[in-house]
Amino acid sequence: MTAVEKLEALRKQMAEQKIDAYVITAADPHISEYLPAHYKTIHFLSGFTGSAGTLVVTLDFAGLWTDSRYFTQAETQLKDSGYKLVKLKVPHTPEYINWLLEVLPRGTKVGFNHQLITVALAVELQNNLQQKDIQTADVDFVGTIWHDRVGLPAEKAFLISEEAAGLSILAKIAQVRDILKTNGANHHFISSLDDIAWLFNLRGQDVDYNPVVLSFAIVAPSEVTLFVNQDKLSPDETDTLYKQGIVLKPYHTISDALKQLPEDARIFIDPKRTSYGLYQLLPKSAKLILGTNPSTFLKSIKNETEIKHIRKAMLQDGVALTRFFKWMEDRLGGEKITEWSASEKLAGFRAEQASFVGLSFNTIAGFNANGALPHYTLTAESNQEIQSDGLFLVDSGGQYHYGTTDITRVMPIGNCATRQADDYTLVLKGLIEGSKLIFPEGTKGYQIDSICRRPLWDYAINFGHGTGHGIGFFLNVHEGPQNISPANVDVAFKPGMVTSIEPGIYRPGKHGVRIENLVLCVEHGNSEFGNFLAFETLTLCFIDTTIVNKALLEADQLAWLNQYNQMVFNKLKPLLSADEAEWLKEKCKAI
Amino acid sequence: MTAVEKLEALRKQMAEQKIDAYVITAADPHISEYLPAHYKTIHFLSGFTGSAGTLVVTLDFAGLWTDSRYFTQAETQLKDSGYKLVKLKVPHTPEYINWLLEVLPRGTKVGFNHQLITVALAVELQNNLQQKDIQTADVDFVGTIWHDRVGLPAEKAFLISEEAAGLSILAKIAQVRDILKTNGANHHFISSLDDIAWLFNLRGQDVDYNPVVLSFAIVAPSEVTLFVNQDKLSPDETDTLYKQGIVLKPYHTISDALKQLPEDARIFIDPKRTSYGLYQLLPKSAKLILGTNPSTFLKSIKNETEIKHIRKAMLQDGVALTRFFKWMEDRLGGEKITEWSASEKLAGFRAEQASFVGLSFNTIAGFNANGALPHYTLTAESNQEIQSDGLFLVDSGGQYHYGTTDITRVMPIGNCATRQADDYTLVLKGLIEGSKLIFPEGTKGYQIDSICRRPLWDYAINFGHGTGHGIGFFLNVHEGPQNISPANVDVAFKPGMVTSIEPGIYRPGKHGVRIENLVLCVEHGNSEFGNFLAFETLTLCFIDTTIVNKALLEADQLAWLNQYNQMVFNKLKPLLSADEAEWLKEKCKAI
Repeated sequence: MTAVEKLEALRKQMAEQKIDAYVITAADPHISEYLPAHYKTIHFLSGFTGSAGTLVVTLDFAGLWTDSRYFTQAETQLKDSGYKLVKLKVPHTPEYINWLLEVLPRGTKVGFNHQLITVALAVELQNNLQQKDIQTADVDFVGTIWHDRVGLPAEKAFLISEEAAGLSILAKIAQVRDILKTNGANHHFISSLDDIAWLFNLRGQDVDYNPVVLSFAIVAPSEVTLFVNQDKLSPDETDTLYKQGIVLKPYHTISDALKQLPEDARIFIDPKRTSYGLYQLLPKSAKLILGTNPSTFLKSIKNETEIKHIRKAMLQDGVALTRFFKWMEDRLGGEKITEWSASEKLAGFRAEQASFVGLSFNTIAGFNANGALPHYTLTAESNQEIQSDGLFLVDSGGQYHYGTTDITRVMPIGNCATRQADDYTLVLKGLIEGSKLIFPEGTKGYQIDSICRRPLWDYAINFGHGTGHGIGFFLNVHEGPQNISPANVDVAFKPGMVTSIEPGIYRPGKHGVRIENLVLCVEHGNSEFGNFLAFETLTLCFIDTTIVNKALLEADQLAWLNQYNQMVFNKLKPLLSADEAEWLKEKCKAI
Repeated sequence: MTAVEKLEALRKQMAEQKIDAYVITAADPHISEYLPAHYKTIHFLSGFTGSAGTLVVTLDFAGLWTDSRYFTQAETQLKDSGYKLVKLKVPHTPEYINWLLEVLPRGTKVGFNHQLITVALAVELQNNLQQKDIQTADVDFVGTIWHDRVGLPAEKAFLISEEAAGLSILAKIAQVRDILKTNGANHHFISSLDDIAWLFNLRGQDVDYNPVVLSFAIVAPSEVTLFVNQDKLSPDETDTLYKQGIVLKPYHTISDALKQLPEDARIFIDPKRTSYGLYQLLPKSAKLILGTNPSTFLKSIKNETEIKHIRKAMLQDGVALTRFFKWMEDRLGGEKITEWSASEKLAGFRAEQASFVGLSFNTIAGFNANGALPHYTLTAESNQEIQSDGLFLVDSGGQYHYGTTDITRVMPIGNCATRQADDYTLVLKGLIEGSKLIFPEGTKGYQIDSICRRPLWDYAINFGHGTGHGIGFFLNVHEGPQNISPANVDVAFKPGMVTSIEPGIYRPGKHGVRIENLVLCVEHGNSEFGNFLAFETLTLCFIDTTIVNKALLEADQLAWLNQYNQMVFNKLKPLLSADEAEWLKEKCKAI
């Protein structure tokens, strides 16, 4: 079936069931960012492969609402699909709701699959549509037409030791229960896979790039139940969980368990990470306490053991990256290197590292115009040879048993134009401004965001994505609750949080620059004005200085750059061959 | 009655009516920032004169919750009052709610006066207290013991012409109705006095410093009613309103009018600027649409006429300030000048200006240690002579028929210490960073805030108040919806908004520095990255350069300072005597 035929099949069902608009969200029942193939509904219907977007279909319009990261990609992928690109003004907002209110007459009906939408969004949708007496209905028009749909993943899972995690499962459960108590809750239903993975020191491979396991969990006053198919775990691991008092039940029994919660339970759920369908199964008489999952806060603050391990992962990642960039430089002009072959080679260097598990996301490797797509998805058609002059942007990361990495570097190729060098330098200034920031306790990411953007704003330049995101410990490459973005995410930075800083400049059709490090929030010290925090850069990979326009850097920015490169060299040198070390020394030379 | 006796009287009533905790907010039924004397309840009970704070009384504790601006002042004023200072961690938040949840047993009861609390806060309070089955009750234990309480103000009001306001009442009502329609509302109840003043081009003197009139308003589909005592208006003005179809009703009839709104009305109210008591009178069957008052957005964007007039007010204010600082400099060392006499003199210079109406707030004039109190209230006891060495901080403003001003300058006296000069320079850096900022459309005040604080953060310095606030056109000195602060106020800056930028450094017991200008948000222009905005500084008063530590300023910051002072001189010169101009020229000399 072509996209157009699928769209016709949707509309046929809509007409039959008197649904005037059908909303298809990019979600699974766990509200995951990376979806198991079974739930890649938007790709199945429209061909669009971006990670964020919503399809809305009426009888005479079909659109994909997505944000600026995906505009160029969506225009290409949606060609002849029957879907039109609708550009979001504000990323991650359901702007289609206002559109529905405009185009739908009073008394019409909107359908969506309750399993694949968050509680928060379902409520917002219903509240808004009510204004015009528009009803909603729980329908699934995709399952009926998706004949070659793959099943749910059934990969093996494993436990990580208390020594690796720094905290036992029971200690983590106790921390969660403390927060539940503070919030007046005695039960807690968890759907989000990374929260469950953290809580049970559990990892797996059910989802690409995210080492999580398809599961649900319920923390009750005297019992903790993990809903996971037991063939995923070895008898030893099952035993380990049993010994800690964890009850194991099959994955699919979650629905019954939710229905059977006590009628007077006070249940804590995260409305942004719980599906509306599962939420509706909770006893009507139970008191619901809505908030961000306690584990989301807890896991964002890495413990000493985790931090120690992350430093190891950074060393391994830094060695792999050094070898990769040296390989690039040695071979360029000689053998043909493409975005694809470079990505493969980089993955290969990472795979040579002792504790490597897999990539932490799909490598973004874009030369010139492809680098201008912030979330470029490399395909056979888009693949470019890296040659002549320009900028090669590589955003990549690894999952190691000791942590998760995420780094972006831009490699200048041949002769770079002045504008390329200036863009590179301005982005670097943004990174440095964030990296060397000292800020009072209580500072939110939205305050840090503008400080990183400021060097670009001075030249009327901006970028359409956030400046940084939290990152897991051998877990999801994107995790909350903190981020660095213009959005009013009211979460203060705390020591132990690991976050990316990754400003960028994108000139569509020409080139893109993004430079990204991971930073650890650390104590800076007390003054008479209170407690201050700072960042320590964790990422260990040289920042190319050959095209830096020194005239654009302030003295302290230049000092930061030289010190950073020197530190990278000092830390990586013992792990490199003499030849590699010599090469890196040159790269890290002060300018 | 002493504060302690009043507290006993409160507790006696609490015991009689079985109220376990009594919450007293700083509010009137209009949720005004500056309260008519009739509503200065917290001052009456505790002696505290600050504008922000909440008293909470239980049978064994009495506390004032207030923010860092008032810590020093509160400690002095609360001495022997029976109330203890409780320091807010986050300004303007009801942190006492969590305290109540901690100290009160289950099933107890909390009382507060429903007329003197916002809808938003009452709901938040009730929702939170419910967690512990704590009930609330509408009680007034103050009215019963306040025997010498003054009546409600009955000052004359007046209309400002369409020529002065730039827009007719009917045009403003039409704008408000458009926003009501967008929000699905057909009725609108307005309590906030500055919103009403703007909408009806009405001004008065019922509240100190704020030229507002005690009133309510209801915008219905076919009728607009202003609830105001008619003896406030001249027959001509009453006639002007009648001719525009405005219905006038006595102030006290608002309660009946609210009860009589249609049962199927869709009523827009601002839950943060409507009293819970009045809200409860609305028909239960009506649909309520909650949001920021439409007029709050509309009046924040000054029209061309208002901007033209504000520039005139700035010229007059600048002349008064120039004469004041020259007078200070000429007399210091000769005659005795105190904080008090200086404030009086400054008010005198302002009063000489043609369109002067009154002060826009109580002048803050603090020498050295008094300058370290961000919201210092000058009293006979606190009054200091300005002599020897140090910093004299003056934060003052005027109401002119052509606009409202608010400016802070610090005058170095005698020899200043290095730390004073450095603090002065860092604050100036903060002001300059904000003033010369270029930022993309959609930028919020919380993003601008950190850019102004950054020069201080670099030295682990911070200040406990916001960086800036919106300001009215011949209206309140503080107005929303925009501000520049760390709080997540999700309002984007728009061209036409006038806002203060006023970073500060306060060293308790030593000195304080704050430098404040008003800036107008203007278009900067389009680039391929979108539309960019900037600020134009409106305030016209030289910034003293004698103690600037040039080593701390970057080249572009120094250039901004010299250009600003040069502009001030050029604009004020034609309005000054030759002698004054000569003096100012020296002050504005480039450094």
